[in-house]
Amino acid sequence: MVESIRRGVSETARLEAFSDGVFAIAITLLVLDIKVPESALHALWKGIADAWPAYLAYVTSFLAIGAVWMQHHGLFSCMRLVDATVMRLNLGLLLTVSFLPFPTGLMAAAITTSRASERAAVVLYGATLIAVNGLLGAMWRYVATHRKLLHSDVTESVFASVERRQIPRVGLFGAATVVGVLLLPRLAVFGFLAVALESVVLARGDRQPGRIEHREP
Amino acid sequence: MVESIRRGVSETARLEAFSDGVFAIAITLLVLDIKVPESALHALWKGIADAWPAYLAYVTSFLAIGAVWMQHHGLFSCMRLVDATVMRLNLGLLLTVSFLPFPTGLMAAAITTSRASERAAVVLYGATLIAVNGLLGAMWRYVATHRKLLHSDVTESVFASVERRQIPRVGLFGAATVVGVLLLPRLAVFGFLAVALESVVLARGDRQPGRIEHREP
Amino acid sequence: MVESIRRGVSETARLEAFSDGVFAIAITLLVLDIKVPESALHALWKGIADAWPAYLAYVTSFLAIGAVWMQHHGLFSCMRLVDATVMRLNLGLLLTVSFLPFPTGLMAAAITTSRASERAAVVLYGATLIAVNGLLGAMWRYVATHRKLLHSDVTESVFASVERRQIPRVGLFGAATVVGVLLLPRLAVFGFLAVALESVVLARGDRQPGRIEHREP
Amino acid sequence: MVESIRRGVSETARLEAFSDGVFAIAITLLVLDIKVPESALHALWKGIADAWPAYLAYVTSFLAIGAVWMQHHGLFSCMRLVDATVMRLNLGLLLTVSFLPFPTGLMAAAITTSRASERAAVVLYGATLIAVNGLLGAMWRYVATHRKLLHSDVTESVFASVERRQIPRVGLFGAATVVGVLLLPRLAVFGFLAVALESVVLARGDRQPGRIEHREP
Repeated sequence: MVESIRRGVSETARLEAFSDGVFAIAITLLVLDIKVPESALHALWKGIADAWPAYLAYVTSFLAIGAVWMQHHGLFSCMRLVDATVMRLNLGLLLTVSFLPFPTGLMAAAITTSRASERAAVVLYGATLIAVNGLLGAMWRYVATHRKLLHSDVTESVFASVERRQIPRVGLFGAATVVGVLLLPRLAVFGFLAVALESVVLARGDRQPGRIEHREP
Repeated sequence: MVESIRRGVSETARLEAFSDGVFAIAITLLVLDIKVPESALHALWKGIADAWPAYLAYVTSFLAIGAVWMQHHGLFSCMRLVDATVMRLNLGLLLTVSFLPFPTGLMAAAITTSRASERAAVVLYGATLIAVNGLLGAMWRYVATHRKLLHSDVTESVFASVERRQIPRVGLFGAATVVGVLLLPRLAVFGFLAVALESVVLARGDRQPGRIEHREP
Repeated sequence: MVESIRRGVSETARLEAFSDGVFAIAITLLVLDIKVPESALHALWKGIADAWPAYLAYVTSFLAIGAVWMQHHGLFSCMRLVDATVMRLNLGLLLTVSFLPFPTGLMAAAITTSRASERAAVVLYGATLIAVNGLLGAMWRYVATHRKLLHSDVTESVFASVERRQIPRVGLFGAATVVGVLLLPRLAVFGFLAVALESVVLARGDRQPGRIEHREP
Repeated sequence: MVESIRRGVSETARLEAFSDGVFAIAITLLVLDIKVPESALHALWKGIADAWPAYLAYVTSFLAIGAVWMQHHGLFSCMRLVDATVMRLNLGLLLTVSFLPFPTGLMAAAITTSRASERAAVVLYGATLIAVNGLLGAMWRYVATHRKLLHSDVTESVFASVERRQIPRVGLFGAATVVGVLLLPRLAVFGFLAVALESVVLARGDRQPGRIEHREP
């Protein structure tokens, strides 16, 4: 213990637990933005159908946070220790992730308002996702250059190959945002969904870095 | 660690922690939908009584999520490792579970509106429960066919017998929904409650699969 | 594993984690009921002062849930295993605990309305606390009579002495409710606060059952 | 187990888990106070810009809670056991932390109202932060004088040096509040932000207490 105080590091367990808590809450709070106005209760099928932008935003943000959780999980499964910088980068990541419900709700509300509003909402939403994924990328980068934080059996090439496949979706989310600004904002919304879906399907923490047969241990 | 990266698997602990977080939050957010309108504050007994659809929906969804948690717990107590597919199925399960507060609130609000609205709400609610339990069933199925994910002492027959008794309530929730559409929607609401109650009372993770005497270890 | 499936029991860790999640969320959601109406923003000191029933209800419910958490913690620190009945009693406990924010908000709102409303709110609030503490007591009782769930070094007399001191506050909360119905409802509110405060100060999981000197291990 | 019941102490794990849950939820609920009024949806850029007090309050409270979490983490990484007093101090700490979303929302709402309202909100906000950090300081102090709660390898001088650097921000938050009362309330808001930022950047649990070279283990 004293040794780890001296060396300015600590174990990963509690940071993971706290982060998991924030991810889990942010992902679950998203549902609070799905609402059917009271006036629509008398024609409820229409009311349910008219809420489609809220479902779209819900699924997009859910998958985006889910993908971040999977990558976070993957990063920390390589790590043995955390230091102060990791703690601060992680706090920044959590700040942006728990901010996400706000632009999510805004985007859902703006979709049926006007194209200018939709554009503003799409830019704020895209900027938040870029910040989330940028901070995640910064954490990967930082850990890659501070090997004492990694488990001893995680070689550089293993980590690099995992990192490459997990490269944060900054670029793709940025591209979707640009499309939303220059072309149709609504296209950006579906772009975000596509990137988030892709993240969940392709990115993950414990991806095997090559073609390796699955042997029973 | 590297070995598990290579083999594309990881330990179950953090997936369980994250899932527990989402289950716990979704189950606790349900209470936010129970409200007494300010106008009813002056005749509060009536206001409290008039909120009965909200209590009914609260208890039903609480038990439904509780039963899912118990089954999830049972499944993971058999598992040694998770792979990417389990992670994705689990994310889908969490997506539907944390969506549940929305149809729950809708059903509570629609019950006192009109029969057509009640029917719409009942269908959306039933569909969500079917999706939840269908994804849970898919996870059981997937794990049953990927034995490397199971603890080595979980034999096929043990797992199958546990699975049989835990067979997701897809059919029963479906039946209740059909009753709601064809007959009386309100009947479906009580049907959901009955099935959820039954799940909690009968389904559980560590059910003994046969008549085995309880010996002290 | 198979052995514990056969014997119908499982370890306590995940039940504790899930329960902690629900306790933590219920206790933190209480703050959402503290509100200053927008019209009071221009005379904010008065607005802040006028919200006193909300602070009173917040602190009372916070301490009541905190005391339940401490007793839950104490019970589970004696337990080695959980069975299906413990799981169900625990789910019932969580259902009543996560319901508490509703009567809490109602009581805060009713205090400044009319005495009849206050009485109704006080009865609902008291009934919820009685249910919470009754279920907690039922869990202690059940575990006391199923010794295979306890750690082997927890003798009956140790458990009984811990249990006695932790006897759920059913009686005291009931007395406060009766006072609220027969005499002044507001008296009951302060009575709930006093009992909750007493629970936190006196009740706890790991209370030493007698006068035992503290030796260093 | 019986020994720890006798000695009135228990392990830290579950207290940390429960506290992490409350910290994570309080920090994530903050986002619910960021809102753009529906009337602003048609000129959304302006609506997004006008919400600046909400962003300011969000970031300040997020960092303030984040810093408390880091200090809590640091304290508990030195601790081996908790006793009843630690549990109660911790419950008080959680009570004030989960209260924070209320003054946060109030401060954001008051900033654009009037200077008198802003002053009231700033005082309430500052008082809450002082209470949070005062309770945190009391926990450090209590643990420092109850060495049986510490890991055996945490010497007094190590603990004292960590404590000194982690000295709760009571004084600084107090100073910012006084500035808000005597001078400009808005200055206090930025003062809170500065102190919170400073806490995250400088305070942390596992700070190395002196100039010690980082050796590979």
